Amino acid sequence: MRQRKLKVGLFGAGRLGKVYARELVRSIAAVELVAVADVDAARAQEIADELRLPRWYAKPLALLEEKDLAAVIIVTPTNTHHDLVIAAAQHGKAVFCEKPLALSLADAHAMQKAIAANGVFFQMGFMRRFDKGYAAAKQKLEAGEIGTPILFRATSRDPFRPSLEYADPKNSGGLIIDMGIHDFDLARWLVGEIHTVAALGNALAYPELQNIGDIDTAILALQFTEGQIGTIDLTRNGVYGYDIATEIVGTHGTLRVGYLRETPLLVMKQNHIAHDVVPYFMERFAQAYPAQLQNFVDNVLAEREPPITMQDGLAALQLAVAATEALKSGTAVAVSSF
Amino acid sequence: MRQRKLKVGLFGAGRLGKVYARELVRSIAAVELVAVADVDAARAQEIADELRLPRWYAKPLALLEEKDLAAVIIVTPTNTHHDLVIAAAQHGKAVFCEKPLALSLADAHAMQKAIAANGVFFQMGFMRRFDKGYAAAKQKLEAGEIGTPILFRATSRDPFRPSLEYADPKNSGGLIIDMGIHDFDLARWLVGEIHTVAALGNALAYPELQNIGDIDTAILALQFTEGQIGTIDLTRNGVYGYDIATEIVGTHGTLRVGYLRETPLLVMKQNHIAHDVVPYFMERFAQAYPAQLQNFVDNVLAEREPPITMQDGLAALQLAVAATEALKSGTAVAVSSF
Amino acid sequence: MRQRKLKVGLFGAGRLGKVYARELVRSIAAVELVAVADVDAARAQEIADELRLPRWYAKPLALLEEKDLAAVIIVTPTNTHHDLVIAAAQHGKAVFCEKPLALSLADAHAMQKAIAANGVFFQMGFMRRFDKGYAAAKQKLEAGEIGTPILFRATSRDPFRPSLEYADPKNSGGLIIDMGIHDFDLARWLVGEIHTVAALGNALAYPELQNIGDIDTAILALQFTEGQIGTIDLTRNGVYGYDIATEIVGTHGTLRVGYLRETPLLVMKQNHIAHDVVPYFMERFAQAYPAQLQNFVDNVLAEREPPITMQDGLAALQLAVAATEALKSGTAVAVSSF
Amino acid sequence: MRQRKLKVGLFGAGRLGKVYARELVRSIAAVELVAVADVDAARAQEIADELRLPRWYAKPLALLEEKDLAAVIIVTPTNTHHDLVIAAAQHGKAVFCEKPLALSLADAHAMQKAIAANGVFFQMGFMRRFDKGYAAAKQKLEAGEIGTPILFRATSRDPFRPSLEYADPKNSGGLIIDMGIHDFDLARWLVGEIHTVAALGNALAYPELQNIGDIDTAILALQFTEGQIGTIDLTRNGVYGYDIATEIVGTHGTLRVGYLRETPLLVMKQNHIAHDVVPYFMERFAQAYPAQLQNFVDNVLAEREPPITMQDGLAALQLAVAATEALKSGTAVAVSSF
Repeated sequence: MRQRKLKVGLFGAGRLGKVYARELVRSIAAVELVAVADVDAARAQEIADELRLPRWYAKPLALLEEKDLAAVIIVTPTNTHHDLVIAAAQHGKAVFCEKPLALSLADAHAMQKAIAANGVFFQMGFMRRFDKGYAAAKQKLEAGEIGTPILFRATSRDPFRPSLEYADPKNSGGLIIDMGIHDFDLARWLVGEIHTVAALGNALAYPELQNIGDIDTAILALQFTEGQIGTIDLTRNGVYGYDIATEIVGTHGTLRVGYLRETPLLVMKQNHIAHDVVPYFMERFAQAYPAQLQNFVDNVLAEREPPITMQDGLAALQLAVAATEALKSGTAVAVSSF
Repeated sequence: MRQRKLKVGLFGAGRLGKVYARELVRSIAAVELVAVADVDAARAQEIADELRLPRWYAKPLALLEEKDLAAVIIVTPTNTHHDLVIAAAQHGKAVFCEKPLALSLADAHAMQKAIAANGVFFQMGFMRRFDKGYAAAKQKLEAGEIGTPILFRATSRDPFRPSLEYADPKNSGGLIIDMGIHDFDLARWLVGEIHTVAALGNALAYPELQNIGDIDTAILALQFTEGQIGTIDLTRNGVYGYDIATEIVGTHGTLRVGYLRETPLLVMKQNHIAHDVVPYFMERFAQAYPAQLQNFVDNVLAEREPPITMQDGLAALQLAVAATEALKSGTAVAVSSF
Repeated sequence: MRQRKLKVGLFGAGRLGKVYARELVRSIAAVELVAVADVDAARAQEIADELRLPRWYAKPLALLEEKDLAAVIIVTPTNTHHDLVIAAAQHGKAVFCEKPLALSLADAHAMQKAIAANGVFFQMGFMRRFDKGYAAAKQKLEAGEIGTPILFRATSRDPFRPSLEYADPKNSGGLIIDMGIHDFDLARWLVGEIHTVAALGNALAYPELQNIGDIDTAILALQFTEGQIGTIDLTRNGVYGYDIATEIVGTHGTLRVGYLRETPLLVMKQNHIAHDVVPYFMERFAQAYPAQLQNFVDNVLAEREPPITMQDGLAALQLAVAATEALKSGTAVAVSSF
Repeated sequence: MRQRKLKVGLFGAGRLGKVYARELVRSIAAVELVAVADVDAARAQEIADELRLPRWYAKPLALLEEKDLAAVIIVTPTNTHHDLVIAAAQHGKAVFCEKPLALSLADAHAMQKAIAANGVFFQMGFMRRFDKGYAAAKQKLEAGEIGTPILFRATSRDPFRPSLEYADPKNSGGLIIDMGIHDFDLARWLVGEIHTVAALGNALAYPELQNIGDIDTAILALQFTEGQIGTIDLTRNGVYGYDIATEIVGTHGTLRVGYLRETPLLVMKQNHIAHDVVPYFMERFAQAYPAQLQNFVDNVLAEREPPITMQDGLAALQLAVAATEALKSGTAVAVSSF
């Protein structure tokens, strides 16, 4: 007898949406991708054709009317998460939602309420937790290999700035919410809760970001509840490549997660020895994205609790919102005041 | 209108055969895997069930009677390649054959004859050529980045010895044919033809290999036709992990391909800083295997010439046979005498 | 005709003082070390015997009465710098003073005044500027290789805490002044002036430091005058070794200075590949210390301006004092208010 | 009471001779360098002036008449070692002789005889044994950390060819004797005695070497007496820098000694991450040269046995001579036949 397949619909056929669609069709055996929806009809049709999907939609909510649809995966711009999550909850669908949860805490609270009211499964998308390196770090931490964490240090660097439309704080929430959300989630997951944040930032490499009220580089200082401290530096100006590095200094050792080489080739010429560099997030986290989707599908089918909850999405957003406010006010702020 | 799919059958459901089956089903859109065959019926059934394949066979040749079968992929033990390739050719199927081509040059010549006589497509399986690192090295070589190659240096290390049954020269051809064949192919592909080989070897880490007439460690010295020289060291006793490294020293620079870390995690403790290591070939070449299968499928469908030919398989085998003989005789031998 | 030698006296025969004494005698040709002074007579005698110095003193100021003494090198605890620098200036000696300049800005201003009033040569000791790596980074920055700096990130880690006596803020100034002073100097030298600092810190690995009012770990956030931002993390708990790393992210590239391996030996065992680690500052900066002394001697003999001035010492101290205050107050502070 | 100083004379004021002279004067406390001798009077005078040595000689043998001279250090071209060592032995001086011992085994045997007949102390110069990395590898080997060695692999690469005058086999012995001698010594020291060698070589990067009967690149294959095997690759064409790497694969692990970075600076630009490279042997072995001289001085003063003997020099030379002959004959040769 054949295994039951989970019928899922995908919201979003952009850069990441296409990757998700291909993974769902090609790599994840227990899933049947029945349709994709995107307000840009051409994009929806293109990926549906490529993967020979039965249907596609340009009106996203129509996807929720699909017969037998058990779950939805949301990879649309952040400012649409609120409406889609609530609608999906009202239709009784299991939901996977890409980070960040929302652009405002008010939206996030409304989403949380709708999920709870409808009793549907919800899993937050923080794919770094599924990266082999971060997973191994978490395991070693829990095994006590470095004792108790005392210092958290994270770096997130894009190789270049996104489009001004994408970067616009109205769409993305701004640098700290858009990029920093991952580091906030890692800080909570690997070290613990944070009660105060401070922030510094500026638009130095891409001054045009000032026009839309955004910055390209930031430093965040974190005070954890249990006394540990942390620092996160973010920049859109990695230039040399996509650089995600995280470190936990403990009382008995240190863990460093990071990875910069794209191919195992070293070019050795007069004056220097050089290697190439991971270009962007899809290459760096090529293993983590399908692992995350597989996990979501397995959880829904097996009726297991999600490893990353709505509350995780909300807490990371709260930190990012607090840090954004700390940047504006120029002072450290208590996270609980948001 | 939907794209035409290539109907393929798979010979071999062992360690690598299973990986190929999964890749064919999950990652390669233009293929339809119709059946798998293995003399071990349980293995054939197991993977057929896992992937919900229509049929499986315990009598390999029965697979060739599959209606509409266009191509076969051979991942069985080397001593079966001769019969399967010739039968497939006689049935007019396109053939992909895993390395090494055969255990003897006589077998290889008969296979070459059958392929030619039946006019079927044949592609040799040397997956390293599809690894991003080796592909980038080849490209840089051809772009002249390091001038003219003068020295070839290669290391192939397994983390432990295979089973004595697998290692038995009657099945695998012995260390030099089984492991060295990849390095011989790389030497020809990256530098050029070789006219003389010498060999040293011994069973030092696994003395039990002497009982089956095999060794665990070897050094091969190569004299290329254009004057360059080369050295290959092989061992079954990597212990620390699976270590494949290749270097070409040129007149204006050097290229090094190699890769040892499994995860991007560094553990830093008192007295040392350590990283983990790629455990084995499926992890090291996780990207190359599906790339190679995709290439085969694309070539058959588009009626393109194979990038790795029967002649490439034969030439590498000739080198490996010559080196095995050089080891026995204790003197350098001319490759053309085989 | 033989070259004139600079007659120097050395204040301090502790851990670093002994290294300086040996370098002066063994590596620096144009110097004659005439005497060493230390309040601990045994220590002074020991190094004088080892190096066969003519004389030693247990009353430091007696050293200044040495006939023909042209210069003094001060490597005593920070809380003695004030008195020694002023006395040396009044005796008309050229002065080299180890970092930090003093424990308080009031002391530092008095020292600055004495140097100016007596018109003597003064060179501040920040040996990192003489490290080949930092020197190369400075050169590349000035050559515009990475465009304009936008982000400064520094890490300083001791492998363990110093003695409580050494660490006592009354003697060392506390973690931020004692360790951070180097990073503040690098930030100014490599990026520019800083106008605001904030700080977080705690005693987590060595809670006993709380008893003397010190911490083991700190994060400093810097706002540079020209808009750039920076972060420094300090800890006494490197555990895995002495780790000094500094990074400047620029508009067109990034420079990273850092070095962790002690010997060029890699040990490759089952489960990991490990290298050893630089144990402490004398090993990491083994090349920088004599280079700095050589530079001081050359400058005095050639009557050249010092590359690191009293003002550099004062500015770094001002930053460290401000950061220490920021830690206490919990808010960012303007550097100019100190 | 002051420690007795060893009065030494230095033969050779070339590139390496100057380094030795400076180390003797500046770094080694228990030595008094009384004179330097070089057939090039200008060179001898230059270094004598720089270091303010009492005397210098253009007729080398005159140095041996120095009153109270206890030891000599020989850093002259290899073809002069025979005469100088024998003369020094006849004058009863302790001798340190730079590698290789001589150009011919006949010369070497005569030198061995003279040393024995006069009962003088003799220490062979193989500085790699004093490098921290090689010393640590030796120690770990002896501690059994990697079990029993089974494979030896070494690489020696100069960044460019030496002058044709230096390279001329009449002066240097040719590539295998001049460069390979270090690797032969390491092979014996780290693994054991060798009974057969084979060699391949060619002049590919610098074809002009053919005119003087030399090559620029070679591969040596070694058969150790206890069954282990080894490979050494040598080239004058490192291009990217001075690259000395040695590996011992053991039954339970692997040791790798090697080091390529010159400064701890990483330059990260679009498309690659690059570090600089150790330029040449004096930089790579900057620590080993003075350590070796210190050891020699200590041994003579303390009347201790030398750690590297005349026999070590002779055995390495025998291997290099055998390998040179193997290259000419095209067959493996028994070392004992030389």
